[in-house]
Amino acid sequence: MPCEMEKIRAEGFAAVVIDILRASTTIITALANGAERVIPLTTLEEARARKEKEPDALLGGERNALPPPGFDLGNSPREYEPERVKGRTVILTTTNGTRACQAAVAAGAEVVVIGGFVNRRAVVEFCRSFPGPILLVCAGTRGRFSLEDSLYAGSVISGLGEGLQLSDGARACLTLYERWQGCDLAALVGGSTHGRRLADLGFGEDIRLAAAVDSHPVLPVYREGEIRLEPIGTPGF
Amino acid sequence: MPCEMEKIRAEGFAAVVIDILRASTTIITALANGAERVIPLTTLEEARARKEKEPDALLGGERNALPPPGFDLGNSPREYEPERVKGRTVILTTTNGTRACQAAVAAGAEVVVIGGFVNRRAVVEFCRSFPGPILLVCAGTRGRFSLEDSLYAGSVISGLGEGLQLSDGARACLTLYERWQGCDLAALVGGSTHGRRLADLGFGEDIRLAAAVDSHPVLPVYREGEIRLEPIGTPGF
Repeated sequence: MPCEMEKIRAEGFAAVVIDILRASTTIITALANGAERVIPLTTLEEARARKEKEPDALLGGERNALPPPGFDLGNSPREYEPERVKGRTVILTTTNGTRACQAAVAAGAEVVVIGGFVNRRAVVEFCRSFPGPILLVCAGTRGRFSLEDSLYAGSVISGLGEGLQLSDGARACLTLYERWQGCDLAALVGGSTHGRRLADLGFGEDIRLAAAVDSHPVLPVYREGEIRLEPIGTPGF
Repeated sequence: MPCEMEKIRAEGFAAVVIDILRASTTIITALANGAERVIPLTTLEEARARKEKEPDALLGGERNALPPPGFDLGNSPREYEPERVKGRTVILTTTNGTRACQAAVAAGAEVVVIGGFVNRRAVVEFCRSFPGPILLVCAGTRGRFSLEDSLYAGSVISGLGEGLQLSDGARACLTLYERWQGCDLAALVGGSTHGRRLADLGFGEDIRLAAAVDSHPVLPVYREGEIRLEPIGTPGF
């Protein structure tokens, strides 16, 4: 969780930033649908200032799950369709996901990738090929533990196979995943605190999209303040 | 976890402070063995200053699992034997547990009790009788998630029965407990990051004591900076 990140040094680590509902899913979807890059920013002010400098960019994001006034797009993966985002820059400001990216960089991570159920296999393959240790950064909701992010972290750990050295948190995530493996993922994600809230706000479809495993087999990488796709299996990765 | 506590308001809640390895276990053991009160303090300076004001008190605690120089006692439950602590005040400074007590008070909790496997049933009975919501405060280790605290939180939730409204974190703890229910508790606790560290330092016996379920059927309550035993079932509780 981001609040744990203050204590963590991650030099030489690859970090996987996880915010299933919804920043990870939206970023992966936007890039898979052809967006050139996503620029995640923490505050509305930063996002609006960046849009002034890059008027051709799309301005997207949320506050309390809803699009801020004057934004082109919210934080729903549905909105980031190919016809909307192809070739475009997306300036994205979300509550938890952006902070998690920045926290991973601040901790010294060597590479930061964006992970969601929608690109699970690509993330597992990347983690397998990375020579150093892996840090799974669960963004959580409003600074608190979230079930969907931990479940996904467990699914990645499970995909990495046996014989790993696991932190207590990683063991707990793996146990969650093993316990619920085979259950209806959309129902599990939708049953989390954040999932129930999104469903109440009419974003039920977003939950189904977030739970569509491997629907977007791409690997978004956060580097120097921008997220772009990296061809899977690139040398040096 | 304490880092989550900053965001939590807990007015009307009862808080259970959980630091299985070892502050909770040591506090419960000291009081069960006849100590009059335990005064948990955050810093070594505060603890030493308090000892100067109360020279009859025992000065106990740890930094990096070991007793600080000049202390009467460390943070091992073994040391808090009846012949040592009966009728005495214990000034205790530990890294994670004390902060968790203070965080629970700062969040506005109405009552703060100390929970460990050693008084599990007493804590479950207290939680059942408390009319408001319950906050389980896992102290963690150096600001990070710890398996043993979450496992205990799950064991308390399990003891409270069906039909509860659970946060995502509470659901995860319950899943951990259900997954490992029936396994050797001392081995589980000893297999955590903190457990392995304590075993390396020669404190393996402390892990066995921490995992001795219901060995001390008492309910320590933190109030106005002191922890004392409260008779279980006291009116107003």
